[in-house]
Formats: sequence, C-alpha cells, structure tokens
Amino acid sequence: MKLVPELFNVLPPDEAYQLFLRHFEPIVRREAVPTAAALDRVTALPVLSYEDLPAFTRATMDGYSVRAADSFGASEGAPAYLKVAGEVPMGATDPVGIGSAECAVAYTGGMLARGADAVVMVEHTQQVDATTIEVVRAVAPGENCVQVGEDVREGEGVLPAGHRIRPQDIGALMALGITSVEVARKPVVAIVSSGDEVISPGEKPKPGQIRDINSYTCQALVQRAGGEPRLLGIAPDRREALEELARRGLEDADMLVMSAGSSVSSRDMTAQVIASLGQPGILLHGVSIHPGKPTILAIAGGKPVFGLPGNPVSAMVLFELMVAPTIKRMLGQTDPDAYSRVFGRLTRRVASAPGREDYVQARLEERDGELWAEPVFGKSNLIFTMVKADGMIHVPLDRSGIEAGDVAEIRLF
Amino acid sequence: MKLVPELFNVLPPDEAYQLFLRHFEPIVRREAVPTAAALDRVTALPVLSYEDLPAFTRATMDGYSVRAADSFGASEGAPAYLKVAGEVPMGATDPVGIGSAECAVAYTGGMLARGADAVVMVEHTQQVDATTIEVVRAVAPGENCVQVGEDVREGEGVLPAGHRIRPQDIGALMALGITSVEVARKPVVAIVSSGDEVISPGEKPKPGQIRDINSYTCQALVQRAGGEPRLLGIAPDRREALEELARRGLEDADMLVMSAGSSVSSRDMTAQVIASLGQPGILLHGVSIHPGKPTILAIAGGKPVFGLPGNPVSAMVLFELMVAPTIKRMLGQTDPDAYSRVFGRLTRRVASAPGREDYVQARLEERDGELWAEPVFGKSNLIFTMVKADGMIHVPLDRSGIEAGDVAEIRLF
Repeated sequence: MKLVPELFNVLPPDEAYQLFLRHFEPIVRREAVPTAAALDRVTALPVLSYEDLPAFTRATMDGYSVRAADSFGASEGAPAYLKVAGEVPMGATDPVGIGSAECAVAYTGGMLARGADAVVMVEHTQQVDATTIEVVRAVAPGENCVQVGEDVREGEGVLPAGHRIRPQDIGALMALGITSVEVARKPVVAIVSSGDEVISPGEKPKPGQIRDINSYTCQALVQRAGGEPRLLGIAPDRREALEELARRGLEDADMLVMSAGSSVSSRDMTAQVIASLGQPGILLHGVSIHPGKPTILAIAGGKPVFGLPGNPVSAMVLFELMVAPTIKRMLGQTDPDAYSRVFGRLTRRVASAPGREDYVQARLEERDGELWAEPVFGKSNLIFTMVKADGMIHVPLDRSGIEAGDVAEIRLF
Repeated sequence: MKLVPELFNVLPPDEAYQLFLRHFEPIVRREAVPTAAALDRVTALPVLSYEDLPAFTRATMDGYSVRAADSFGASEGAPAYLKVAGEVPMGATDPVGIGSAECAVAYTGGMLARGADAVVMVEHTQQVDATTIEVVRAVAPGENCVQVGEDVREGEGVLPAGHRIRPQDIGALMALGITSVEVARKPVVAIVSSGDEVISPGEKPKPGQIRDINSYTCQALVQRAGGEPRLLGIAPDRREALEELARRGLEDADMLVMSAGSSVSSRDMTAQVIASLGQPGILLHGVSIHPGKPTILAIAGGKPVFGLPGNPVSAMVLFELMVAPTIKRMLGQTDPDAYSRVFGRLTRRVASAPGREDYVQARLEERDGELWAEPVFGKSNLIFTMVKADGMIHVPLDRSGIEAGDVAEIRLF
C-alpha cells in the first residue's frame, strides 16, 4: 500500500446524473399481481375501467325516490302529496317502479325506483297516512343521487402507468372488479461491500476492523425505493476476488451497487473492477458534493453500476440522489417522490463551500404549524449523526451557506 | 326495512378519541427479529451499545499519523522533519508503533500508529527521501481523527423504545454487532365488511349491488400503519351472521374494524353487533366530522372495535384519525407520524360548517418551493376523488372555511 493520489473528473450532482441518464435506457419488465397485494407497487400499464361506477343511480340520502317534476313548487305552505308505492331494499336487483305522483322509500347507497330521477330527504317529508307523504321542498332532477358513471365511466383511465399504488387505488380497482394488476417487476439490485478492514456484523472486530454498515443501509434503501436487494457479502481488496463477486452479482441482477472501503486504495480497486465489468464502463468518477465526493457512475452491458463511498453517510446521500431515482426509472415510476422532502426554516446557520452541494444532518420540529430544522452536531461521517437526524438539509451548489431563519429543502431519511 | 332515525351522541374527533383512550390500555407484545429484516418495525425496548464505536482511533484523511507535539510550530518556512517508521495497513490488528520525531503512513478509516495522536494530511507534507518527510503545517492532538467512542459510547442509548426503524438505524445496529432486535409484534387487525348490497370484487354485480371497497382500503391502511390485516369477508345484514363473523374475528385478533353498508339500517345492525361483543362496549356513536360522522368507537374485552361508515372516503378518513393511531399505540410507537401531513396554501376557498371538522380531497403541487393544494372537484364520497387526490385538506372544528391563499394542514393519503 502507498499514498495514491485520487483522480476525479468532478461534476455537480445534477449534471453527473444527467450524464448517466444519457447512457441509460431503462427497460420496465412487468408481471401481474393480485390487486389486494399491490400496495406500493408501480403500475406498468394504464388501467382502464370496463364498467360504469356506479352501475346504477344511487341515493345519497335516506328518503324517497321521486320524479323531480312532481315536487316542483312544493313548500311548507303548499306541500306535494305523493303515494308511497313501496321501497327499494338494499342490493335489490329488480326495484319497484313508480308512476306520476308516486314515490318509493330509498336508503343511502340504494337504487332509485324505476321511473324516479331524484331523492327527497326524509327530513323534507311528513307521513300523512300509511301510504301517503307530503313533500315540503322541491328537488331538481339528480338531486341527492350519484349518477351512473359519475365516479368513473366505462373506458375512462383509472390509473396511469408509472403510478405507485396507494390504499385508495386498491379500493378503486376492486370497486371495478379489477382484481389483478400489471405492475413493474422489482429490479434486482446486487450489493457488494469491500475493504480489507470490513467484517460481517456477526463477527467480533479485531483492532483495526469495522463491521459492514453499507450492505445493510443499502439493502433497506433498495426496499424503500421499490427494488429487490440481494446482498453478495464483503470482498477483500484483492482485484480477482472483488471482480469475481461483482461480475457474478451483476449477471443475476439488474443493477450493481458497490461500496468500497474507506481508503483511497480500496476505492481505486473498486474503480478498476467497475471499469472491467463491461461497456461503456465508468462515466464519471467524482461528484461535487459533501459528503459523497468519491462516487462512481457506470453502465456495464446496459446495467447501472454505482460505486458508492465507504463512508456510510456519504453512501446514503449518494444512494438517495443517484441510486433511488434509477430504481424508480427501472420501475417506470413517473410519480414524484411523494414528499420525501420537506421545507423548513433553519434554527441556525449552515455553512457550505460554493461550487459543491452540501447535505447536513438535521432534526425536524414543528412550531406553530411551521417546520424548523435543527442541524445535528457531530462529524458528518458518523452513522449516529444520521440516527439522531430526521433528514438532511440541502445547501445548493451556488450557495455559501443558508442563514438562520431562512427556508431550506430537507431530504427525509 | 323502514326509515329509522339514526341516534348519535356526537363528539368532536379529538374529544372522541380522548374518550376512547380513557378506556383503552394498549399492551405491547414483543418478538426478536433479525436486524437486517427490521425495516419499519418499532423497537419494543431501548437499544444500548455494548461497545465503543469506533473501537479504535481512526484516521479521517490519508496522510501520516504523528505525535501532534512533533508538528508544533511547523510551517512552510520551517517544516518539521519526521522519519517514516512504516505504515498501518487497513484492517491491521497490530499497527506499527512510532516514537518521537517519527510518523507512519495512515489511510482514511485506518488505525493510527501506536504512539500517534493525530494525522497530518498528505497535502501538508513533502517526501524528502525514502524514509523522511517534512511537515509544513502543525496539527492539534486528535486532528483528522475519529476518537474511540466518538460515534457512540459503550452503555449509551442507541435507539429508544417505540422508534420506527429506518435504514440508518439498521446500519447503526449492525455497526455495533446488534444483529437481532426486540420489536413490537404487529397487532392483528380483523376486518369485516357488511351490507346486503356488498359483494366480493371477483363477482359480477347485479343491479343494486356494489363491490366491496372498504375491506381492501382498510387492509392496505393497516399494513401502512404497521399492523397485520386479516380479511374476514362480507356479512349480510343479518344479526346472527354478522355477530358470528365479528365474534370469531375478534377472538383471533387484537382489534376489529367493521365497515357497515351505506344504509342507516346496516349501520344500526353493526352497532347492535358491536354492542354485543363485550364490555364496556360502545363508547361513542357519532363524530362531528365530514365525511365520516356515523362512526362507532368501542372496546370489547380490552380490544378496540371500530365501526366505520360504509362510504369508502369516510372510512379512510376515520381510519387515519382513529384506527391508525390505535395501531401505533399497540406498537408502542412514540415517534410522530413522520410527515404524513404537510402544510400548503389553498388555490381556492374551501367551505365548511363550524362545529365540525372537514376533510376535503386535494391535489398537491410545488410552485417555487411552496406547496399549493388544489381542492378536487366531485362529490366527497366518490372513491375516485381519493384516487385523483394526494391528500385531504383539514378544516378545523371552529372554522367556517379556509380562504384561497391561506395555509392549511393536508393529510397525505
């Protein structure tokens, strides 16, 4: 080992990712899953309705279904008298019909009587005798009803492609009888850690050794992003061993995430291995960001390969900025990241170097309906500063800091 | 069937839930799970560290580990000359030792040499000959190092009880060799739908029938809240059938969620069944909220029982306000709901009745770093207004509306 200078061709994070995207053509593969098990999956095709919902005109109030015209002009002083022809029970498939000056008992959510076009609320009626009511307020056609197809019409788009499925979406699909849905297959993300000092968490470290963190934070972050993580384990900083593990991992996966040891030589080894995996290879080595500068973006045989820094905080930041959006592209997800970032005021100044993006750990607190971000003290590369934090304050490239009281964007972690 | 008046003893949502809580004593049961599989689980006990992290003093820069005192007074004009005694390779368990006026090559993340107390960055040195360097800048003791225990100390609290585990928490536990963690067992939530008009989504509805929505939105919402849903199916509005299903469901579960059909008589049936399940029974029937008024809060034999409205939008709102927080209590979760709500300005006025809380579907949009909420048109009880929405605007009890341009709280769905 010796002190090797590290060579970077640094780009700002946005430009770096744009460069990566110019070489990356995501292929969304799809599979059918039961709708009931589709929470948080991403639609692979637009979903259309084959039915009107509701399929029949439904009452939205308890009362009487009527011909609206029979109620015109009705008031407390001059009620309309209607004959109660019967009732429409819930779930009835052959409702009672009404004629002129007739009505039928209607229940919320139930069908209107045949011939009826509105519902009079029970509160606006009086029972006169067993078969007669008086109506003291006029209703317009369609009043107190949901019309056929008012929720969704046959042929209408229900969900677009690329949409992350939420509880209400599942409910809506079920309402239409769509019990199976085409979603994007989860991209398999192989994860390799390396570094001569890195050991498995189940082992007892000897002096100089540390336990693997990045395999596990990356595993959880892959799950959060909608991918399927596959841990390959820890390789020592020997070219053949690392290359063998990386090559095998990438063959069976859709993407490879490598995190080097913390030394320059370990990162250098990782860079050599990534360069050997396939064409076009390394697109960029170095991002003008703190923490997270020594990052590699690569494509090998059409598959994305990321070389993340060994520092676990850097690895998490770069994962969120580069790997998570790539997983979402492989899912075809077009939805924005639903509020994985918030805006809050800083409790104190955060400094930064112009010409690089900074991410600073912060705790969030709500005060009088406003969000405040309190920067977390401690070295930015310690994993426990991330444990103490709710997210990270983003200081843009062109700023030399953000003043206390000013609003900043905070990425939630 | 007939038009039955519905009897409510309405309370505002907050008071209703407080009343419920006075009768509810959550018991958190725990189980051990592998840390690697603990994402989004809730810690059942505080987690302490049995080790210092790091366990040895680590370099944070590439350079030379030195005795800081040997560098005092060093400058470009008057460098300090140090003998290179060797190097400390990554993962070394028995590092080289240095004496006075000596140094050893140090790599980022590596151990310091025995006898060293600081690291000089390689950029602040010059190689004089094979075994000598000059140091052109003084370092203080501890400079460019992470000290033993600086990340976390032996005996220190790592995670509190009641904390939802995030990717960085998993990484931090692994760093300490904590490969298994005690978490709250997921409460089992039995879900029953009822209503003579309600059929299974796999069936073809006849006129007057509708497919079950609430079982599936509730199932997904239970998963989101951290519980384990168990669907019991659909009961017709017959007392014996519904009671049998509810009683059996509650026996095997920790909580029961029933959603009635949309008619008053179906809700009335559900209320009768809930009242029969155990003591103290129904605590409240009716919440001053729109949508969602006809809600039942009950405890039967120590277990929470919720009677949600048949309307799927009402059911979702009440689930979020009453059921989800109850699941979190059964998990012992003390973390706030991490940004399941946001604040945004309204694009247009939203009206409400004073004396009730209103929830209005809205789409969210970011404009120049500010969040705007656009109310979604359409009847509030249609499931597709929830599909088109990102969340619901909360209009507090005492307000008659919120003006365009004013900031409102929005619950994300």
